[in-house]
Amino acid sequence: MKRVYLDNSATTPTRPEVIEAMLPYFNEYFGNPSSIHSFGREVSKGVTEARENVAKLLGAEEPAEIIFTSGGTESDNLAIIGTALAKKDKGNHIITTKIEHHAVLHTCEYLEKYFGCEVTYLPVDEYGMVDPKDVRKAITDKTILITIMFANNEIGTIQPVAEIGKIAKEHGVLFHTDAVQAVGSIPINVQEMNIDMLSLSGHKFNGPKGVGALYVRRGIKLVPHMHGGAQERKRRASTHNTPGIIGLGKAAELALKELDEKREKLTRLRDKLITGIEEKIPEVILNGHRTQRLPNNVNFSFKYIEGESLLLNLDLKGIAASSGSACTSGSLDPSHVLLAIGRSHEVAHGSLRMTLGIYNTEEEINYVLEVLPEIVEKLRQMSPLYKTTNV
Amino acid sequence: MKRVYLDNSATTPTRPEVIEAMLPYFNEYFGNPSSIHSFGREVSKGVTEARENVAKLLGAEEPAEIIFTSGGTESDNLAIIGTALAKKDKGNHIITTKIEHHAVLHTCEYLEKYFGCEVTYLPVDEYGMVDPKDVRKAITDKTILITIMFANNEIGTIQPVAEIGKIAKEHGVLFHTDAVQAVGSIPINVQEMNIDMLSLSGHKFNGPKGVGALYVRRGIKLVPHMHGGAQERKRRASTHNTPGIIGLGKAAELALKELDEKREKLTRLRDKLITGIEEKIPEVILNGHRTQRLPNNVNFSFKYIEGESLLLNLDLKGIAASSGSACTSGSLDPSHVLLAIGRSHEVAHGSLRMTLGIYNTEEEINYVLEVLPEIVEKLRQMSPLYKTTNV
Repeated sequence: MKRVYLDNSATTPTRPEVIEAMLPYFNEYFGNPSSIHSFGREVSKGVTEARENVAKLLGAEEPAEIIFTSGGTESDNLAIIGTALAKKDKGNHIITTKIEHHAVLHTCEYLEKYFGCEVTYLPVDEYGMVDPKDVRKAITDKTILITIMFANNEIGTIQPVAEIGKIAKEHGVLFHTDAVQAVGSIPINVQEMNIDMLSLSGHKFNGPKGVGALYVRRGIKLVPHMHGGAQERKRRASTHNTPGIIGLGKAAELALKELDEKREKLTRLRDKLITGIEEKIPEVILNGHRTQRLPNNVNFSFKYIEGESLLLNLDLKGIAASSGSACTSGSLDPSHVLLAIGRSHEVAHGSLRMTLGIYNTEEEINYVLEVLPEIVEKLRQMSPLYKTTNV
Repeated sequence: MKRVYLDNSATTPTRPEVIEAMLPYFNEYFGNPSSIHSFGREVSKGVTEARENVAKLLGAEEPAEIIFTSGGTESDNLAIIGTALAKKDKGNHIITTKIEHHAVLHTCEYLEKYFGCEVTYLPVDEYGMVDPKDVRKAITDKTILITIMFANNEIGTIQPVAEIGKIAKEHGVLFHTDAVQAVGSIPINVQEMNIDMLSLSGHKFNGPKGVGALYVRRGIKLVPHMHGGAQERKRRASTHNTPGIIGLGKAAELALKELDEKREKLTRLRDKLITGIEEKIPEVILNGHRTQRLPNNVNFSFKYIEGESLLLNLDLKGIAASSGSACTSGSLDPSHVLLAIGRSHEVAHGSLRMTLGIYNTEEEINYVLEVLPEIVEKLRQMSPLYKTTNV
């Protein structure tokens, strides 16, 4: 059977070049980079190069601003909890949004529960966009951190990050952004955008799983989230995941080199898919912003049907998509993101996310545009709600 | 040049069988196991098998008691901080020892600083052994956790874990053990030993870096350390590091199958190295217990010389050893473990750890026994302290 993978925001395949770069670090250059003997030194060189490549991709001033972690979730936890503890004598107020990934939302809730932090969850407009004026208004003299995602993982909306960064800087408040979905897909420059901390994850841009990074502008103090050894200049304990770090570095190098090409290709496929769905299927609503949108994200609500049934039927045709974030699959609650942009529970339940990757082809999009309308029509014919409304 | 790797407690090479098991999970079975489509399901099966293999290695009652993490450090952090927060209404007292890995010690210090926890750091005897009677005496009605390592990473001493487990159980106190150095080297059974939580790390027994696990006995509630998605039954957020998890599962399977053989071989090489050093080099002190000792650990203090110089000279001969834990290399402080067993600062500084692995050979031990005495003698001849004492 034909298989089409359209869930690249959940995870991506690791590129062959990345695997090739990693392989020697499993049992040839296998030493612990913290060790001072030759087995350690030869690995530590590779880690340094990887750090440089990640720093370059973000436009960081220096490689030492990159802390390697186990992934986007840990990066978010470190940035947010680490700031809250480091700045607890200055204040306890955090500003975020209602549409963040759970790695940010649940971390904020943890701080509310165990550290008496106060968190402002800003609303977004119908396209999932935060208003920078709302950010400015929310700042108090107790505000220690603004954490707003670069681009949303479900609906793809890209936030006005540079404007938020400017506001944060003017008020002397730290600005963290979860850029897990944005890194490697759209241009990012932490210096120009006044980003103080930025989370990224390797496996979202064809690097390996189990590794990520947190950019932390020089001079910012964080209380570590992983307590133990002196790795990463005492900011993140735990033996370096050297194959993972090497792989992340390679993925960063390739992402920077191919950014324009990838963006152009994915945008074209994305728009073909969006236009095709809107032409071929009635009563659909595009979720997210039409232009301020990740090049790889397509998210529609299909009225009168269940996203879950859509997914299962697509799966039978070899097409892998998702109803929202992979991190919450299995949950019966409607997406907090779709509710935040004003979708009703029913409409939110009928949503489908298709996220493109570097290996998708025009032919695959044609296949989806052939199969999806039939499935939607079949499911609608079975839906009592649809018949009632359309008699 | 001949190269001899004797730093297997810092890290080990990943076995070819493990790499082979991991490889398909990078870009063939690359889906997110949380996804409900076919790309997710085919991966989730592999994760289930890996969980079973880790559970079996520990004698756990069921696979669901295994939480996959990014390594031993995270496992320790989750067990200790997670228990302190989950039990904060019951008490705030933790019992540990002075010779724990920093992943335990610094985590305890974090809880003292930010959560008002009280921590008892038990002493050890001259062999690095904790007295179970001290554990019993330290328990108060506020004690929520006993965390004592299975075997020490620097001097290899194996603690009376089963006795401690029994005492913990009698008093209704949770017992966690950092078994990072013990798993895959000596037999462990969490049920027979009354261990409630156990930390392990893949790369310490020829699995991959960047992955570990925490065994948590069924029914024990922990506050998560990684906040975010619903992975690992909401106990550890973050996309599964599937190649890492598959590799850890394979390493666990092999470790269980080959445990006796490995233990026998390493014990033989270890004793040959210990005996050889004691025969060939005067004024040395074996650190750690002579029999209650990890099969792969050799740790000596060489009087009148610096461990650092020893290391550098061994490195020039292709021999990789360490002066203590890799996680603290670069630090000028003497080892807290050697100080705890009563070594003076000077003697502690003259220490060398050599840790064996499955690929070491008798020939390599012979080479070390040929090279090491010459180096020690040379360095002693250069030491003002040695000349003074031995004139």
